[in-house]
Amino acid sequence: MTKTVCVIGLGTMGYGAAQSLLRAGFTVRGVDVRPEVRQRFASEGGVAALTPAEGAKDAEAVFVFVVNSEQTEAVLFGNDGAVSVMPKGAVLATCATVPPAFVEGLAERLKPSGVLLLDAPVSGGGAKAASGEMTVMGAGSPAAFSKAEPFLKAIATKVYNLGDAPGQGSRVKMINQLLAGVHIAVSAEAMALGMRAGIDPNVLYEVISNSAGSSWMFQNRVPHILKGDYTPLSAVDIFVKDLGIVTSTGDALGIELPIASTALKLFDTASGRGLGREDDSAVIKVYAEDSGIALPTGQGS
Amino acid sequence: MTKTVCVIGLGTMGYGAAQSLLRAGFTVRGVDVRPEVRQRFASEGGVAALTPAEGAKDAEAVFVFVVNSEQTEAVLFGNDGAVSVMPKGAVLATCATVPPAFVEGLAERLKPSGVLLLDAPVSGGGAKAASGEMTVMGAGSPAAFSKAEPFLKAIATKVYNLGDAPGQGSRVKMINQLLAGVHIAVSAEAMALGMRAGIDPNVLYEVISNSAGSSWMFQNRVPHILKGDYTPLSAVDIFVKDLGIVTSTGDALGIELPIASTALKLFDTASGRGLGREDDSAVIKVYAEDSGIALPTGQGS
Repeated sequence: MTKTVCVIGLGTMGYGAAQSLLRAGFTVRGVDVRPEVRQRFASEGGVAALTPAEGAKDAEAVFVFVVNSEQTEAVLFGNDGAVSVMPKGAVLATCATVPPAFVEGLAERLKPSGVLLLDAPVSGGGAKAASGEMTVMGAGSPAAFSKAEPFLKAIATKVYNLGDAPGQGSRVKMINQLLAGVHIAVSAEAMALGMRAGIDPNVLYEVISNSAGSSWMFQNRVPHILKGDYTPLSAVDIFVKDLGIVTSTGDALGIELPIASTALKLFDTASGRGLGREDDSAVIKVYAEDSGIALPTGQGS
Repeated sequence: MTKTVCVIGLGTMGYGAAQSLLRAGFTVRGVDVRPEVRQRFASEGGVAALTPAEGAKDAEAVFVFVVNSEQTEAVLFGNDGAVSVMPKGAVLATCATVPPAFVEGLAERLKPSGVLLLDAPVSGGGAKAASGEMTVMGAGSPAAFSKAEPFLKAIATKVYNLGDAPGQGSRVKMINQLLAGVHIAVSAEAMALGMRAGIDPNVLYEVISNSAGSSWMFQNRVPHILKGDYTPLSAVDIFVKDLGIVTSTGDALGIELPIASTALKLFDTASGRGLGREDDSAVIKVYAEDSGIALPTGQGS
């Protein structure tokens, strides 16, 4: 008998995880509010479920790939939520980027149910999600890790065990997002200054990619700018949220984070100008608008 | 007959370049104000020269690896400066990070002498300099490139030709330094927040290095923090200078650079607290002091 696993939230990362679980031979239930996404998933061999409860019933593991803590709360404890139907000993892996304190709270609330909690935020981007090569920043009991192991193997090539305490994975993910968000923002700032100074942006991208100024995000996001393609792989508003978690955690811990705060302000400005649902590299439009820079349109050169 | 080349300024990058030129079989004259450095260079087969003029006399190429535009000006045009003795048709490669406008001015001033100017800032760090694997961001006439070619081959694996106009190399280098400086500063900010939140810094480094939050600088500089070793490979004051070039260029071009400006402020603060000559990763001490974080000392763990 094949094991049953449920993935709630079939966005870029969740869909990739669900596909990887299908390839590994599991029975995979996929939950998403969008009918066309459920249909696509069913056509690829998945089981489309209408509600979190329908997807999670009797599943050995539930992976939650929604956008934030509010949605995680809703799919777990709202109407037709997953937790009420999960059997004792099943594992619940929360994969969205959420405040560490939210996950700590979850751990307490799940105790009576006997559901095992794995704090399991991920990194790697859409391509790695699709190929089953994500990085998982995991924290939870040995029992939770052990129950989740066969499924984690299907979706990730690196699974870090950051200790017994849920919250620790989300803490590390938060630091990753601080860096990722600032790197996207400064990539835009650098490309904007380069263009303003008359440097060919394609040449600039090529040189910097091979120099000490490079970053994972510079290499990943600047091509969107060069193509003028702001179709969201990850949207501006995601970093409004994630850098918001960073700065409020900094406030709570009494540490000033001037660089993250400045980057957050840029994402906020971009969102305020109506770019919230565009790709996060669209923050360069703030610089372009304010300084009269003509961005590449991707139509010839 | 072997060709003669002169390297002025035997710091981390200049010494590496001079060693690479020696390995390639050239006669290499090295100029440095520090007697112990000259002595070391002579013991490795180089020719120690006391003044820029002594080093540059009849050399086919002169590489200037001093710290900034003031020092470049002094070694070229000051007492016993190099330019007055350089033969017509020799090439002068300026490798320090300097304001683009300074290099444009040099091009004008060198015209009467017939010396060929190559705007040739470098990237790659000390290890790559020592192994002859730097990246050169070059700009200059075809004649300048051609004359410099055998020497560039010895010191670099990537030589970009950014066009005929000196200044264009320095412009690209300036963008690289914007990114590099911000990446160092945000690496410190991220590691400080992580430690404040109770994450083991060694684990944090390992996870982030394999995630989308990574950067060249994160991977290169954070190990200094983990070892508690702030011996300067590149000092805090270098980025006070380089980010200063960035922000004043931004001012001149009418483009706001909020992230670079915030990073510059951090380097300025660090320098003001007496850390100017420590390794640039020492900016983390500002966060540690202000938020009561105990940094790793490298003595056990």
